[in-house]
Amino acid sequence: MAEMKLSRRAEQMPYSAIRKLVPFADEAKKKGIHVFHLNIGQPDIKTPVEIFESIAGFQKDVLGYGPSGGLLDLRVAVVDYHRKLGFDIDIDNVWITTGGSEAIIFAMMTVADPGDEMIVFEPFYTNYNGFAVMSQLNLVPVTTRVEDGFHLPSKEIIEAKITDKTRAILINTPNNPTGTVFTEEEMFILNSLCKKHNLYLLSDEVYREFVYDGNVQTSALSLPEIKDRVIVMDSISKRFSACGARVGTIISHNKTIMDRLLKFGQARLCPPTLEQVGAIAAYKNIDKYVRPMIEEYEMRRNLLFKGLDTVQGVYAHKPEGAFYGILRLSVQDADKFCRWLLTDFSYKNKTLMLAPANGFYSSPDKGVSEVRIAYVLNSEDLKESIEVLGAALQSYKD
Amino acid sequence: MAEMKLSRRAEQMPYSAIRKLVPFADEAKKKGIHVFHLNIGQPDIKTPVEIFESIAGFQKDVLGYGPSGGLLDLRVAVVDYHRKLGFDIDIDNVWITTGGSEAIIFAMMTVADPGDEMIVFEPFYTNYNGFAVMSQLNLVPVTTRVEDGFHLPSKEIIEAKITDKTRAILINTPNNPTGTVFTEEEMFILNSLCKKHNLYLLSDEVYREFVYDGNVQTSALSLPEIKDRVIVMDSISKRFSACGARVGTIISHNKTIMDRLLKFGQARLCPPTLEQVGAIAAYKNIDKYVRPMIEEYEMRRNLLFKGLDTVQGVYAHKPEGAFYGILRLSVQDADKFCRWLLTDFSYKNKTLMLAPANGFYSSPDKGVSEVRIAYVLNSEDLKESIEVLGAALQSYKD
Repeated sequence: MAEMKLSRRAEQMPYSAIRKLVPFADEAKKKGIHVFHLNIGQPDIKTPVEIFESIAGFQKDVLGYGPSGGLLDLRVAVVDYHRKLGFDIDIDNVWITTGGSEAIIFAMMTVADPGDEMIVFEPFYTNYNGFAVMSQLNLVPVTTRVEDGFHLPSKEIIEAKITDKTRAILINTPNNPTGTVFTEEEMFILNSLCKKHNLYLLSDEVYREFVYDGNVQTSALSLPEIKDRVIVMDSISKRFSACGARVGTIISHNKTIMDRLLKFGQARLCPPTLEQVGAIAAYKNIDKYVRPMIEEYEMRRNLLFKGLDTVQGVYAHKPEGAFYGILRLSVQDADKFCRWLLTDFSYKNKTLMLAPANGFYSSPDKGVSEVRIAYVLNSEDLKESIEVLGAALQSYKD
Repeated sequence: MAEMKLSRRAEQMPYSAIRKLVPFADEAKKKGIHVFHLNIGQPDIKTPVEIFESIAGFQKDVLGYGPSGGLLDLRVAVVDYHRKLGFDIDIDNVWITTGGSEAIIFAMMTVADPGDEMIVFEPFYTNYNGFAVMSQLNLVPVTTRVEDGFHLPSKEIIEAKITDKTRAILINTPNNPTGTVFTEEEMFILNSLCKKHNLYLLSDEVYREFVYDGNVQTSALSLPEIKDRVIVMDSISKRFSACGARVGTIISHNKTIMDRLLKFGQARLCPPTLEQVGAIAAYKNIDKYVRPMIEEYEMRRNLLFKGLDTVQGVYAHKPEGAFYGILRLSVQDADKFCRWLLTDFSYKNKTLMLAPANGFYSSPDKGVSEVRIAYVLNSEDLKESIEVLGAALQSYKD
């Protein structure tokens, strides 16, 4: 039989940077070592019971197709949520997607063709790489640095990356993996760049509420000058600790964009019906749920970064939001270190699983000494994790 | 502001051929006219209660991410289902997808790059067009005809469409929209073409059980000569009347294909968790559910096509499977006729919603006098629908 070639795009697709060490973690567990999972943004916070209760109370005999743009009641709930935040959103500006992932894929495909470029700020959410391969567009990275708290470089540095193939700037604020929240000034810089260079602004705002020290996020929805150029991708995954639900939203004030997005939605028929029913209940009960959750994360962030300050070999910037941070470590190759933690190290019979940060960069040489940490564990576990990390860095030899 | 261009691919995306007449149906209903929905493959059959019960019994506190390849218990249930049918399938051959739709998109992207070609037999499931635009590959249609019961033309006619850009043949048996079930001989023709021309066979088998007159489907999984070239896309939507669940499967014996498919799965994290829990229960109870459902559909098919035989102006072929049929009507433009049914016609205060068949063809001039009918209504409604169609064709003037 002749050689069986698969597509170039299937080769280009990255393996998950977050999940690739799973087999080594499994081995460690088999040896009886406790592994603290700081590698994945899977919150330990309880999902609102209203989600489960409303789904259990689903009354129809047939679990039929829903509308391609999502259940009307959920779109209404999403509109209410935005209006309470002060955004001028109507039912025509909202479609429901199968998770935030699908929202990003649809947005990319709607504004860009194969070979087109999109500006991203690295380190960035690693799955943007996969979505870009699926869409066959090129992510053009602008590097941000831990020394700057991963805030934006100057307007000129960003502008230098814009070519006649650039179709959009893709942002995520509050940010995974850095925890950085763009200031109003930074959002204005992006606003003026999009306006000047005729670009779309794709804004991933799934961590909108995860902002600490009494601050709030500046949404791309609050940039009136580029109202027609903004697409916001969102999800219930983090807001309601419901990652497995796969319910997202996509929002735009641009009627043509909404029309085009719906065509992608029609091709895949509809998002999952029962989990949309759950999402309606979640949005209706948001007030009693989100505030205590944010307080818990703020407390963890404070605890974690105070603790990390005392660990030799860790350079970090205390982030303003989300539940991640990028740590620069005193190691040559964080990938090797993360593997070593699972295969050759334990402290009091415990070890850590971290995500090597290189996978969050598009430039191959960046982030090689860095890891992403997700503080999705309770205080006691976090304290122990800091202790384990300190011991590990002391005994590790490159 | 400069002109805001969206992507060519967003322009190319088709609007849903099945859903485009919905506003006219809504208008008819406002006028108090009863509309029989024969336009969409949304079964009226009750979803197994076990799906709802198992989801209501979900016990975890956190609705977390599942594995990217799907819940292990569901993959095991899918393996068991296939083994009972006599297929040599193991856990390594099965990933779970978000509906059959995603399975098709992942399969297309895995075997073909932008600009590559895929052979399809028209009329075909209209959403293949959208998936092909998303994947930026070109569907190359081989036309089948109602006079042949929409069975395959000669091997030579198919072969003439194969070029050096052809990467795969995409089939759907039993078929939506024709109801045709490929014979063993036809499957052998496809087998030999794939072998000879080094092509993949993408087989959409969501209607596998929907075969009548005591016959069974010949699955692409039963073609040992091209075992490594077959990808089967499947879904629980029709088998368990659970279209809104968005749980599908993708199956291959080729380890490299399974590896590449998982990368696409990792990018979007996981399929919906709760509906996978429901799918496990559905597969475990398949025996008591599927047989009575198939008997119901066979009865309806017999009733419908016997009835249509008596209607002047309808030329149809009684299909062997699924729950669709393509009818050639004595009208010039079935699109206009379908709209007229909703805007200007009623019989005893009732009318029909049908899907114009042109949208199921890739060749622009084909199927213009044809409609797709889905027999997803009970016997009484089907009988009335036949009567309404007869009256409509009598009074319609092109």
